[in-house]
Amino acid sequence: MSDFPEVAARLVRAIEDWPEAGVTFRDITPLLAAPEGLRATVDALVDAARAFGPLDVVAGVEARGFLLAPLIAEALGIGLVPVRKAGKLPARTLAENYSLEYGEAVVEIHADAVTEGARVLLVDDVLATGGTLAASRRLFERAGAEVAGGLVLIELPALGGRDALGDLALTALLEY
Amino acid sequence: MSDFPEVAARLVRAIEDWPEAGVTFRDITPLLAAPEGLRATVDALVDAARAFGPLDVVAGVEARGFLLAPLIAEALGIGLVPVRKAGKLPARTLAENYSLEYGEAVVEIHADAVTEGARVLLVDDVLATGGTLAASRRLFERAGAEVAGGLVLIELPALGGRDALGDLALTALLEY
Repeated sequence: MSDFPEVAARLVRAIEDWPEAGVTFRDITPLLAAPEGLRATVDALVDAARAFGPLDVVAGVEARGFLLAPLIAEALGIGLVPVRKAGKLPARTLAENYSLEYGEAVVEIHADAVTEGARVLLVDDVLATGGTLAASRRLFERAGAEVAGGLVLIELPALGGRDALGDLALTALLEY
Repeated sequence: MSDFPEVAARLVRAIEDWPEAGVTFRDITPLLAAPEGLRATVDALVDAARAFGPLDVVAGVEARGFLLAPLIAEALGIGLVPVRKAGKLPARTLAENYSLEYGEAVVEIHADAVTEGARVLLVDDVLATGGTLAASRRLFERAGAEVAGGLVLIELPALGGRDALGDLALTALLEY
């Protein structure tokens, strides 16, 4: 982790009342925009990813997970698979629903995105209610992969995301 | 570039009649999912990025540009800035419209995303009509940055994207 906690404390920005009144949003864009922030973030994510043991695939969850997952996949020399919102993937897909505060959403992967038994690490920026990561896990398990765990930059423990993930191993680099 | 053309020829997948009849979609997900594909892609993108001279920021265009831009920023040791769809960024933004086949869309950056005079490289997966990249360029110029150029994995020359970009220097690793 080296200097990641110090760098993150300086560069993750709190935005009050976004996306709605009473909510404090943790904005990682200044962290990624600063070269020393991006470097410290990559180093911390890669260290955390290695702790999951051998991996074959890093799965990035659209959209902000796409900014992090490639960095881990490249550092580990393994493959990168996007988990996309509905209707974005061109070949045959698997789809899973999850609940939002109002209504439902869908995530998809290509049905042939992973080989049988591949060990997959799920990556997103934030663990909030856990619905997206739980749905992503179901997708990869239906595709025949083994989900080794989830890795997020930020966990918001008050929203209970870990409960939604059941027995999934989860690492968060920061908590707010 | 080394082995990128050969690897891409093998791993970029043509999907017929998507997103609509008569269109052949070039699917880069198998390229990114294969470790050798991801590695060759990163190497080719980074070589192409270096040819733009000194850079301060790599800007990734939502969503598939997010899968590529971080890899370049990290390799060059510079910052990463996302160009997002409307309503996704929490702080004060600049916004630019562009035309779609039916209607309009909006891209945004944070107003403080770059410092005055920063040299920015715009990164996306595909250059089609060029609307998104042209709007992204206007955003960074309004923010006081200098746009060094655009870098895409795939150019579809039949769609005339280079014309929409005017005098912007553009590199594409593949053409279909």
